[in-house]
Amino acid sequence: MSADKTQSKVSRDLPIGIFDSGVGGLTVYRALHNQLPNEHFIYLGDTARVPYGTKSLATVERYAIENSLFLAAKGIKLLVVACNTASAVALPKIRDIVGIDVVGVIGPGGRKAVAITNEKPNAKIGVIATEATVQSNAYAEAISRAREGATVIQAACPLFVSLAEEGWAESDEARSIARKYLSPIVAEKVDALVLGCTHYPILRNVIREIVGDKVALVDSGEATAEEVAKLLEEKNLVNRISIASKDRQLCDDLDHFYVTDAADRFSRVAERFLGSPPKKLEAVEVFGVDAE
Amino acid sequence: MSADKTQSKVSRDLPIGIFDSGVGGLTVYRALHNQLPNEHFIYLGDTARVPYGTKSLATVERYAIENSLFLAAKGIKLLVVACNTASAVALPKIRDIVGIDVVGVIGPGGRKAVAITNEKPNAKIGVIATEATVQSNAYAEAISRAREGATVIQAACPLFVSLAEEGWAESDEARSIARKYLSPIVAEKVDALVLGCTHYPILRNVIREIVGDKVALVDSGEATAEEVAKLLEEKNLVNRISIASKDRQLCDDLDHFYVTDAADRFSRVAERFLGSPPKKLEAVEVFGVDAE
Repeated sequence: MSADKTQSKVSRDLPIGIFDSGVGGLTVYRALHNQLPNEHFIYLGDTARVPYGTKSLATVERYAIENSLFLAAKGIKLLVVACNTASAVALPKIRDIVGIDVVGVIGPGGRKAVAITNEKPNAKIGVIATEATVQSNAYAEAISRAREGATVIQAACPLFVSLAEEGWAESDEARSIARKYLSPIVAEKVDALVLGCTHYPILRNVIREIVGDKVALVDSGEATAEEVAKLLEEKNLVNRISIASKDRQLCDDLDHFYVTDAADRFSRVAERFLGSPPKKLEAVEVFGVDAE
Repeated sequence: MSADKTQSKVSRDLPIGIFDSGVGGLTVYRALHNQLPNEHFIYLGDTARVPYGTKSLATVERYAIENSLFLAAKGIKLLVVACNTASAVALPKIRDIVGIDVVGVIGPGGRKAVAITNEKPNAKIGVIATEATVQSNAYAEAISRAREGATVIQAACPLFVSLAEEGWAESDEARSIARKYLSPIVAEKVDALVLGCTHYPILRNVIREIVGDKVALVDSGEATAEEVAKLLEEKNLVNRISIASKDRQLCDDLDHFYVTDAADRFSRVAERFLGSPPKKLEAVEVFGVDAE
C-alpha cells in the first residue's frame, strides 16, 4: 500500500484536509470538528466550479485531483473527500496521486447504513443523492460490499442543494418538493435512509417529517467522522498538541478555510449552515497545481 | 471603433456565435432563431462551470473571455453574450478582445423596458435576475441611460434556475416560491418586468399569473434578437445564402452546439426548454484558448 509507505513521514500534528465542491462539505467539517475537537482542519471549497453533481464523471475527477493536490501541498496528515460526487467517482485517482490516507464519504455512509440495519433479515436501505452520485451507483456498491443482497432504493433530489444554500430548508416549499422526491423511498418502507449529499443534513427536519420516526437517517458526514477517528488511532496520527477546550467553536481561528471563488457568499452560507462564519477564510486558485 | 475596422473582413455568411453559462441561453437562441430564420448559429454552453450567477465578477469575466475566444476562433460574424451575468460584468473586456461586434442581453432588455413604458409619466420597471446580475446593478444603469430618473425595483430569484432546469417550472412549488420572490415587485405595482436571467422565460406562465396582466413582461432574449436583426441590416451582415424554409426547426443541423461538459444532460434540458434536442452537439474544452 503506497499510503502506508509514505505515512511514516507524515507528522501527527498536521491538520486534516477536507475538500468539497463548495459550501455543502461544511456539514462534514462540522461532524469532524465535533468528533475530533483536538484536531485542526484545512477546508477547501471549490466554489468557482460548484456544483459537481450535474457534471460528468471525467470533469469531476479532474477537479477533485486539483483540489487534492492543493491541500496536499499545504501539508495535511489525512485527506477527507467531503463531496459525495467526488467520493463516488474520483477516490482511486486521488489515492494514486497524494501520498497520504484518503477517506471518502460514500464508504462510511454505506457501511453505517448496513451496520444499523444488520439485525433486520430483509433490510431495505434508501439513498438520496445528486444525479451524478446516483448514476455512479457508488452507494449501492458500497452497501452490497458490506452486506451482500441488501436492497437499495436510490432517488436523486437535485433541488435540495439550492433550497439549502438559499435558506429555504425549513420552508413549506421544501417540504412539498421533498415529499415528491421521497415518495419512492416512503413507498418502499426503507429501514434506513442515507443522506448521500453534504447539503441534505441541512434539510434533515423536513426529511425526518416525511419519512417518519421509524427510518434511521444516516448522515454520511457523521459516519465519516467516526471512521476518521478510528483511523487516526490505528495509524498513530492523533494530534499530540492540546487544542481542545470547552470554548472551542466551529469556524474558530484554528481551522483554515479556502475557497476558489466568491468568499462573501461562502461566508454567508457558512453562517446559515453552522451558526458562525469562518474566522480564517481566503480565496485561492487551485487550477494548474501540478501532480508530483 | 475597433469593431468597425475589423468588421469589413467579416463574411456575411458566417454564423452568429452565442455563449451562455449553460443551457439557459437556449431561450436566447430560440428568440434569435425565430427572429432570424435565415441565419445559422454556433452555441457554446459552459456547462463545466455553470452557474455563473453565484460566482465573483472576476471569475465570470475570465470564463466569459475564454468562451468568446473559443467562438471567435470558430469563425463567427457577430457574438451574442446570452448570459445576463456575463453581459453585466464582462462586455467591455470581451469587446476589447474579439474583433467583431458583441451584443449582450442587458442593454437590449433595459432599452425595451423603457420603450414600452415611455408614455407613462412615472414609470416603474422591475428587474428579476441572479444575485450577481442584481449586485452588478447593470440593468438599473442600462435603464437609467435610456430614461433618466426611471424607478427600478430589483429582486434576485436564485431558485428559479434549478426549478427551470429540473422541470419544476409549472409546479405549485415554483408558484409558491415565485410569489415570495416577486412580492416586492408586486407591492411596487411595476409597469414592466424584465426577465433578466435566461432561465426565467421558462417560468413565464407562473410569473405572469403572479404579477397579473397589466405588467408588461420583457424577455431580454427577445429584445436582444430584435436589436441583432437591426444591427445585421445596418452593418450589411445579413446572410446571403438562403437557408430559411418553413420546415426549418429549432436545433436543426444548420445550428451547431458545443458544451464544455455533460452533453447528455444538456440535450435532455434542451428538449425540455425547446421541444427538441440539438442535432449537432459536441463536448469541447475552452480552457486555455489564447488571446490574440
